[in-house]
Amino acid sequence: MIPLHSHPSGRHFLQIPGPTNVPDRVLRAIDNVTIDHRGPEFGELGKAVLAGMKKVFKTDANVVIYPASGTGAWEAALVNTLSPGDKVLMAETGHFATLWKKMAERLGLQVEFQEGDWRHGADPEQIGARLAADTQHQIKAVCVVHNETATGVTSNVAAVRQAIDAAGHPALLMVDTISSLGSVDYRHDEWGVDVTVAGSQKGLMLPPGLAFNAFSAKALAASETAALPRSYWDWKEMLAINPRGYFPYTPATNLLYGLHEALDMLFAEGLENVFARHQRHGEATRRAVRTWGLEVLCLKPDEYSPALTAVLMPEGHSADALRKTILTNFDMSLGQGLSKLSDKVFRIGHLGDFNDLTLCGTLSGVEMGLQKAGVPHNKGGVQAALDYLAQTSQAHPG
Amino acid sequence: MIPLHSHPSGRHFLQIPGPTNVPDRVLRAIDNVTIDHRGPEFGELGKAVLAGMKKVFKTDANVVIYPASGTGAWEAALVNTLSPGDKVLMAETGHFATLWKKMAERLGLQVEFQEGDWRHGADPEQIGARLAADTQHQIKAVCVVHNETATGVTSNVAAVRQAIDAAGHPALLMVDTISSLGSVDYRHDEWGVDVTVAGSQKGLMLPPGLAFNAFSAKALAASETAALPRSYWDWKEMLAINPRGYFPYTPATNLLYGLHEALDMLFAEGLENVFARHQRHGEATRRAVRTWGLEVLCLKPDEYSPALTAVLMPEGHSADALRKTILTNFDMSLGQGLSKLSDKVFRIGHLGDFNDLTLCGTLSGVEMGLQKAGVPHNKGGVQAALDYLAQTSQAHPG
Amino acid sequence: MIPLHSHPSGRHFLQIPGPTNVPDRVLRAIDNVTIDHRGPEFGELGKAVLAGMKKVFKTDANVVIYPASGTGAWEAALVNTLSPGDKVLMAETGHFATLWKKMAERLGLQVEFQEGDWRHGADPEQIGARLAADTQHQIKAVCVVHNETATGVTSNVAAVRQAIDAAGHPALLMVDTISSLGSVDYRHDEWGVDVTVAGSQKGLMLPPGLAFNAFSAKALAASETAALPRSYWDWKEMLAINPRGYFPYTPATNLLYGLHEALDMLFAEGLENVFARHQRHGEATRRAVRTWGLEVLCLKPDEYSPALTAVLMPEGHSADALRKTILTNFDMSLGQGLSKLSDKVFRIGHLGDFNDLTLCGTLSGVEMGLQKAGVPHNKGGVQAALDYLAQTSQAHPG
Amino acid sequence: MIPLHSHPSGRHFLQIPGPTNVPDRVLRAIDNVTIDHRGPEFGELGKAVLAGMKKVFKTDANVVIYPASGTGAWEAALVNTLSPGDKVLMAETGHFATLWKKMAERLGLQVEFQEGDWRHGADPEQIGARLAADTQHQIKAVCVVHNETATGVTSNVAAVRQAIDAAGHPALLMVDTISSLGSVDYRHDEWGVDVTVAGSQKGLMLPPGLAFNAFSAKALAASETAALPRSYWDWKEMLAINPRGYFPYTPATNLLYGLHEALDMLFAEGLENVFARHQRHGEATRRAVRTWGLEVLCLKPDEYSPALTAVLMPEGHSADALRKTILTNFDMSLGQGLSKLSDKVFRIGHLGDFNDLTLCGTLSGVEMGLQKAGVPHNKGGVQAALDYLAQTSQAHPG
Repeated sequence: MIPLHSHPSGRHFLQIPGPTNVPDRVLRAIDNVTIDHRGPEFGELGKAVLAGMKKVFKTDANVVIYPASGTGAWEAALVNTLSPGDKVLMAETGHFATLWKKMAERLGLQVEFQEGDWRHGADPEQIGARLAADTQHQIKAVCVVHNETATGVTSNVAAVRQAIDAAGHPALLMVDTISSLGSVDYRHDEWGVDVTVAGSQKGLMLPPGLAFNAFSAKALAASETAALPRSYWDWKEMLAINPRGYFPYTPATNLLYGLHEALDMLFAEGLENVFARHQRHGEATRRAVRTWGLEVLCLKPDEYSPALTAVLMPEGHSADALRKTILTNFDMSLGQGLSKLSDKVFRIGHLGDFNDLTLCGTLSGVEMGLQKAGVPHNKGGVQAALDYLAQTSQAHPG
Repeated sequence: MIPLHSHPSGRHFLQIPGPTNVPDRVLRAIDNVTIDHRGPEFGELGKAVLAGMKKVFKTDANVVIYPASGTGAWEAALVNTLSPGDKVLMAETGHFATLWKKMAERLGLQVEFQEGDWRHGADPEQIGARLAADTQHQIKAVCVVHNETATGVTSNVAAVRQAIDAAGHPALLMVDTISSLGSVDYRHDEWGVDVTVAGSQKGLMLPPGLAFNAFSAKALAASETAALPRSYWDWKEMLAINPRGYFPYTPATNLLYGLHEALDMLFAEGLENVFARHQRHGEATRRAVRTWGLEVLCLKPDEYSPALTAVLMPEGHSADALRKTILTNFDMSLGQGLSKLSDKVFRIGHLGDFNDLTLCGTLSGVEMGLQKAGVPHNKGGVQAALDYLAQTSQAHPG
Repeated sequence: MIPLHSHPSGRHFLQIPGPTNVPDRVLRAIDNVTIDHRGPEFGELGKAVLAGMKKVFKTDANVVIYPASGTGAWEAALVNTLSPGDKVLMAETGHFATLWKKMAERLGLQVEFQEGDWRHGADPEQIGARLAADTQHQIKAVCVVHNETATGVTSNVAAVRQAIDAAGHPALLMVDTISSLGSVDYRHDEWGVDVTVAGSQKGLMLPPGLAFNAFSAKALAASETAALPRSYWDWKEMLAINPRGYFPYTPATNLLYGLHEALDMLFAEGLENVFARHQRHGEATRRAVRTWGLEVLCLKPDEYSPALTAVLMPEGHSADALRKTILTNFDMSLGQGLSKLSDKVFRIGHLGDFNDLTLCGTLSGVEMGLQKAGVPHNKGGVQAALDYLAQTSQAHPG
Repeated sequence: MIPLHSHPSGRHFLQIPGPTNVPDRVLRAIDNVTIDHRGPEFGELGKAVLAGMKKVFKTDANVVIYPASGTGAWEAALVNTLSPGDKVLMAETGHFATLWKKMAERLGLQVEFQEGDWRHGADPEQIGARLAADTQHQIKAVCVVHNETATGVTSNVAAVRQAIDAAGHPALLMVDTISSLGSVDYRHDEWGVDVTVAGSQKGLMLPPGLAFNAFSAKALAASETAALPRSYWDWKEMLAINPRGYFPYTPATNLLYGLHEALDMLFAEGLENVFARHQRHGEATRRAVRTWGLEVLCLKPDEYSPALTAVLMPEGHSADALRKTILTNFDMSLGQGLSKLSDKVFRIGHLGDFNDLTLCGTLSGVEMGLQKAGVPHNKGGVQAALDYLAQTSQAHPG
């Protein structure tokens, strides 16, 4: 038997910023029998999920789905559009931006990394300035993380596009939405993104195992000459067979069942309602954090993440010790601080399949954890969240 | 498709006092393929669940399992031990005690109903006095509800037994544990109960559909002469075939899978730990209620239910309106007031597969609901619960 | 862990005549979270399944659903309509007719049992003759088993009704359809049945645990004066609350989810298609049996059961030894011979969620089992079935 | 709702040579809630599945697991060990060998493709001869498909190793076991394989979505200097963190639950028993094919695949028309002929979670399909299989 069952009574609170709590409907969908991935039923499924993902990306262009982690979608974005030695401009927003940068280097790209303090999003002005200076157009792509999962900071993608355009620069714009898609408003076409990278295990409410690229005609054109070797990630073969709902190699059938169900759920709630829900839960969380007297890592209010909140520990207190106290006492998993934030922050995921009372339980776990772990704080954080939630809640029609 | 999916995002809070939140492990167990109920695997299953239920009842005597609701177990207790016209003494502890009484009357028994105010448990003294007066031993059975699901009041079963014994009266003692078994300490043998009645959908963490009787040698002897007609509920045929793990008619195979899993979970946590957990959650709930300035229905502290708390509404305020506000705004189901308590109380279930953070979410839903519904109350109920829970929480070893 | 997993590789063939192979869709439906049985979603579910069951019974009259085994539905039929000492006429078609008779006697009814050889259905002529002789109308009910699960013999219910009418007798007609409903054509209203008894675990493709009564206005009127004590089974309370989709006591929520799904499946296939499928599989099975040189227990072709086939063993050969050989060698469960047929017949279930290739696998298991067990037979039974199935198969439109 | 439910009654026969029929136990395991992939429970899971996979590969060396299709494992094998322009020797055993070759070319490798007729395995002599001629050791790797899914032909991997050794050549030996691992005897260490490639959806009885590499110390050493760009597939980061049960990026958590369960099942049956079962089913299938008068594609008996059988259609008859007849009439999916075998062969998968009666159903579907589709054949194929299966079956101890 799978070693999953050592938990005490009740439901585990999985409040890391992904993988998120997978809804029962999605788990049950995944549990359906595997079918022939070349048969007629599969074709219907394939077409439905590809069409649905376009709606989620808000694109009329191209979408592909890989049996892979989100990390694979990063790689797909790079190898389909770039050639060995190409220069890319990346913004250091945090741990995941840094990992993407490392990947690019390992693939043989030259990365120019605009330094950041891990408390702000990508800086459109700085990006614009750099591109303006690149008169020879050596920079082939600008890569930005929409929602830094390590910091709870979002970047203004539309502004980055405007900066690129203002500089009259032809670089492709690539955006990682792994922890934002399906939780935070995102508009591939309207914002002029060339390649969007996504994964299944966050706002899409699925287990990990599916990765996505959405890409513009310009990106597709770039792939014609891009010389990085590629096969598994190659867009071309995908596009050739996807219109009939099939894939060039065996797709992750059962996860696609889950995707179908998750898309149904997102569209039934309405994407704009989903985004508003996440905004509201983010605000409630920050009110609790401030009442506790703790500091939200993100410094600019218009960059607050609706998907997660990273919280700075008071000097001299260990975030990991706190997380362990919370895990062992209250059966809740929180996100750890990553690399240079290790042990300095903890992260509260409030994304995916989530609601007011689960948020209240989550914040209660944090507040009780602070008390158990002897972390200096003011009481009343949960109360502050309750006040805000009660004030802003609405009766559900259904 | 089943009309189950109109809920908004996140998990519904099912905080009625049963059916309770069925753990995923139990649901998945139920979802196994149905097997031959006369084959060798089934025999193993049957023996295991019967043995496990004896541990839960704390009895070495007899246990039978019916494909039925808990209501069926009431009927089984009566028709196996009594004859038409027999007199039984019942204690009016609330709605469910009253339903059991009505059932007894419909089955042709004469019920003497000791009046109650629905805020106290059965009164051992009053029972003892009545039995002492029954010098001709016309009363054949005393029926008591261990945990009145309608009121959140428990009865002292051991004291009732002592009262019967002190009166030197041969009446059988029958106890309804439908909403206590598996949540509240219960000891069939030690407390000298003759027939215990139970159901699957509360502390046993199963969907409804299984009903149980545990019964003493004395009750079994009574069944030899009991003249109420019976067939489906007859103990005798059950006892004849149960030792090999089989049943006289087709059992509810898949629910028995769930029972097997639920027993595993209860024993892994440890029954005494399960009881302590419920006690602690009851206390946290009452602290919240008192802080809100509301009144717990149960009047005697030693009769507080560890499984649910019934809360009186302030004069002029509707419990049902509050429950509706909470359901539509916060996606939580609470128990309604039943019959004479209709609209006057709401009931918070805190039994079954449950933990601190889910309780915090539950109480948060109540507190926000009071605010949304304009029910006069003091803030801070959740905070009071948090303080108590944090103070008394313990790290889980696993 | 449930002791279900000792099977060797592949899927067990559960070819007893019920419980039948529960479709994955139904198991998954049952696996949904339990909801508030007094909440709005449940009301929708309740109304849907009650309406669906009327279609299955082909009745516009009354249908009730119990959390119980089919055996409970037998009891419900009797206790709602009859009084202690009432005389009922029953036809001895086999083991289950005999069990129903025993139940009636234990409930205090006087049963006149028309003897049978367990190889024929109920005899309408004999029933008519007996009723005609009952000029004082002492017989209150005629009870017939539509499909004798022990013998694979059906009874002509419409002809029994005509015989009753021809005798001008007011007796109620009660019919057990436990192993026919949803597999064999059945028409409660058209055939003039007063009470139909059914269970979940056969043609309805559910696990055991739900029981049904459909009943006419005449039966309901009889219940007004019927004096057998009843409470759990009482129709009246059911009818009072069912129209809103609710039940007087806690229903078996999760099995009702399964019922909803199973009804969807039956209606999607079309009831008449379902019946034709069973007819065809019965014929294929009998062709195999005859080719083997074995004897079908049922003696009259117009009484062959479309749901199961009972096969007589050659003299001196043990049916149970054969079944054991088949179970241990080929992982298939077949039905045993019951009471006086013990060890003399084995029963092949071909009902419920079933198709041509599973039938071929089933018959292959029997043919190989005959060979392994040294039972004298001719080869070619499977071939005969293949010929018939290929000849009569049709392309599925979907 | 997922468009999966248009099937007629009963269970679909998924007899393509993968994805195979996923056992209920595995589907249910996958359906468990997603957990924190950096938490303690996950670490236990990770260690268990990595250890289990070593047993399946029969290796003490290295095993890594990717969230990917088997195709990804091909790519991982190449990019971890080779440099742009490296020469590899591949054996054209069929469609999948050809796809692997195309992938190698797209990744910038020079492939020497030893021509084959798609009816034989790789030729060790020819490989040995070529390597002996390669005195400058320009060939860096020899790539062989253990079980050609397109043809039902196996290759003798041990003999290939011996040929390499006899030539005194340092080339790495890479083997694709995507459709053999867990079904056909395979010995990574004993046979001296350097990189073994595998996927989840065949003998491992999982849905697609996991990919595996097992690799020798020599392969790992090669990866130190291999210059093909890589990041997602990089072994090094995997090996760094795997010992604690974790992965460098988010793993496919729920499919790993399924892997854990599937490994339990394989080890409970015993790998050698699993292999023998597949051998026996392959033989039964070929006896049926020969009786029908059809030709098995594989020409050498010692290269027959125990996992699938490809069958040649008689001249002038369409395999795809036959497959369609079988799908629409008998609800069974068979494998199609691929590329140059298109419409000329159909493939019967008999691998994974499978047993005698399901094989009998499968072969019955083929025989009836031949008849329905008007394909000239002799009857009696199923009978021939029955004879063989009955003769060779054994009672299961459990």
